[in-house]
Amino acid sequence: MACGEFSLIARYFDRVRSSRLDVETGIGDDCALLNIPEKQTLAISTDTLVSGIHFLPDIDPADLAYKALAVNVSDLAAMGADPAWLTLALTLPEVNESWLAAFSDSLFEQLNYYDMQLIGGDTTRGPLSMTLGIHGYVPLGRALKRSGAKPGDWIYVTGTPGDSAAGLAILQDRLQVDDEADAAYLVKRHLRPTPRVLHGQALRDRASSAIDLSDGLISDLGHILKASGCGARLDLNAFPFSAPILRHVEPEQALRWALGGGEDYELCFTVPELNRGALDVALKHLGATFTCIGQVVPESEGVQFLRDGQPVVFDWKGYDHFA
Amino acid sequence: MACGEFSLIARYFDRVRSSRLDVETGIGDDCALLNIPEKQTLAISTDTLVSGIHFLPDIDPADLAYKALAVNVSDLAAMGADPAWLTLALTLPEVNESWLAAFSDSLFEQLNYYDMQLIGGDTTRGPLSMTLGIHGYVPLGRALKRSGAKPGDWIYVTGTPGDSAAGLAILQDRLQVDDEADAAYLVKRHLRPTPRVLHGQALRDRASSAIDLSDGLISDLGHILKASGCGARLDLNAFPFSAPILRHVEPEQALRWALGGGEDYELCFTVPELNRGALDVALKHLGATFTCIGQVVPESEGVQFLRDGQPVVFDWKGYDHFA
Repeated sequence: MACGEFSLIARYFDRVRSSRLDVETGIGDDCALLNIPEKQTLAISTDTLVSGIHFLPDIDPADLAYKALAVNVSDLAAMGADPAWLTLALTLPEVNESWLAAFSDSLFEQLNYYDMQLIGGDTTRGPLSMTLGIHGYVPLGRALKRSGAKPGDWIYVTGTPGDSAAGLAILQDRLQVDDEADAAYLVKRHLRPTPRVLHGQALRDRASSAIDLSDGLISDLGHILKASGCGARLDLNAFPFSAPILRHVEPEQALRWALGGGEDYELCFTVPELNRGALDVALKHLGATFTCIGQVVPESEGVQFLRDGQPVVFDWKGYDHFA
Repeated sequence: MACGEFSLIARYFDRVRSSRLDVETGIGDDCALLNIPEKQTLAISTDTLVSGIHFLPDIDPADLAYKALAVNVSDLAAMGADPAWLTLALTLPEVNESWLAAFSDSLFEQLNYYDMQLIGGDTTRGPLSMTLGIHGYVPLGRALKRSGAKPGDWIYVTGTPGDSAAGLAILQDRLQVDDEADAAYLVKRHLRPTPRVLHGQALRDRASSAIDLSDGLISDLGHILKASGCGARLDLNAFPFSAPILRHVEPEQALRWALGGGEDYELCFTVPELNRGALDVALKHLGATFTCIGQVVPESEGVQFLRDGQPVVFDWKGYDHFA
């Protein structure tokens, strides 16, 4: 159908539900203009999602919008930042109005939930993909970085990593789960992961480092260890698994998915011994699930896995697009 | 070849030539962390370039990197902003090392020229495309917006619009130009347009509105007129053309390219009568070429084209991806 690029943008994306005071000019000029409060550091992250690689081509557009935003908000969560603004560059093979309506409704529902504002973007014709730029604030000097872990710090994860990979396996018919509620739970953990925004904010001044689990625990914890110049000892017996995954997946497979499956968007973080009490109070106050899975060790000791106190060997990597 | 995503990013893009004091953390964490000076407004723009739509698939990667950045810097120029940081989301069909080397060398050369820093991005596998997020500053309250034009203001363009479309026509064998120097000039105006950053800054406090010419003068001026609630009277006799385009292109075709060709990345802006003297001084100080091509009129008068003082009728539109 004949539908100009500009009217398309106007129709689906130029609707302000959240009108933030820090947005001087949003969509509709050459640039958005933003006024940042004093003593706040700006946090910026960018993610691209490509059809067939980051999502299944037949994904429900509402789920796609949800996940695209969640994945990016998760990067803010990992810094302890408050979400603020989004830019969206959307490449579409064609103008499909019902697809656009479902996608944009879902996107704005989520933006509204986080009190975020869409401040700009681009719409182009091409193979389906999108790039989101996400912007948030963190109080000056209080951002959670990957580089602060020290030997002796304890290693934690939130939630139950592995669920997302199990949900994807169900969607791809690689895993059969007869129990409807369990299947729905696992699929939802894949399609609608929850960015741990409040958890990340509660970790400020308490955790020594943090990252979100996008590529799998081994790969993501590896980034912390590399940036901090440390090794780690992980207790496989301590790993937290959800009841649904334990009911339908062999323990070894569940572990493999937790370590290498990715897309859980839980947080992995390190906490000095002195801060463990404060951490417990802050996260329990949120009703958060979090588990200590190991300890940071000197870099020379590498990454060790223990089961029942004995070393075990693994060679499972995170998902790497160009591997 | 086996080349992990992360080592690929590290190798080609994690090289800081400009280390800006406002960048607390650049590439390498979940988010970049930026500290914005006081009394500055942040300007953000996003553009996607897709192979086969925004650039020819066989484009020299050095030209592609140049243009991708120039197009985005041009959006900052149109606001009167100073360039600061870039995010780059690059989607590649394969790891081609010589392509990546040429692309990234050219990108960093330009970033260095503008004292900009690459602060993050994403690398994914897929059909060749890229999304750039560009960030700059403009002093509080002094950004050039599209919405400030008033009836009576004079309409200007910088440079000689139409050259870029002529250069593209040469590249696509739709235009034959025997003179090598003229052909090289026009092709360069297409492949290596110059963002008018200093011009934009000189327009602060002088121009009532501004936009950059990405889609063609009619389309882009149309955005100013719509945002400002005005019409325009354009004097076709006043349009500035380059000597090379006048030597090789029929006047009507040159005009068509100036009005509808796009990708010139010159600035179009409006100036109140009272500011014309200050404008002349400020732009001539830069050695800039700029031409008054018409005047803003009340919205009820629409957009009129005059030739030798007589109205003429046009129906040429800018390039619209979904039209």
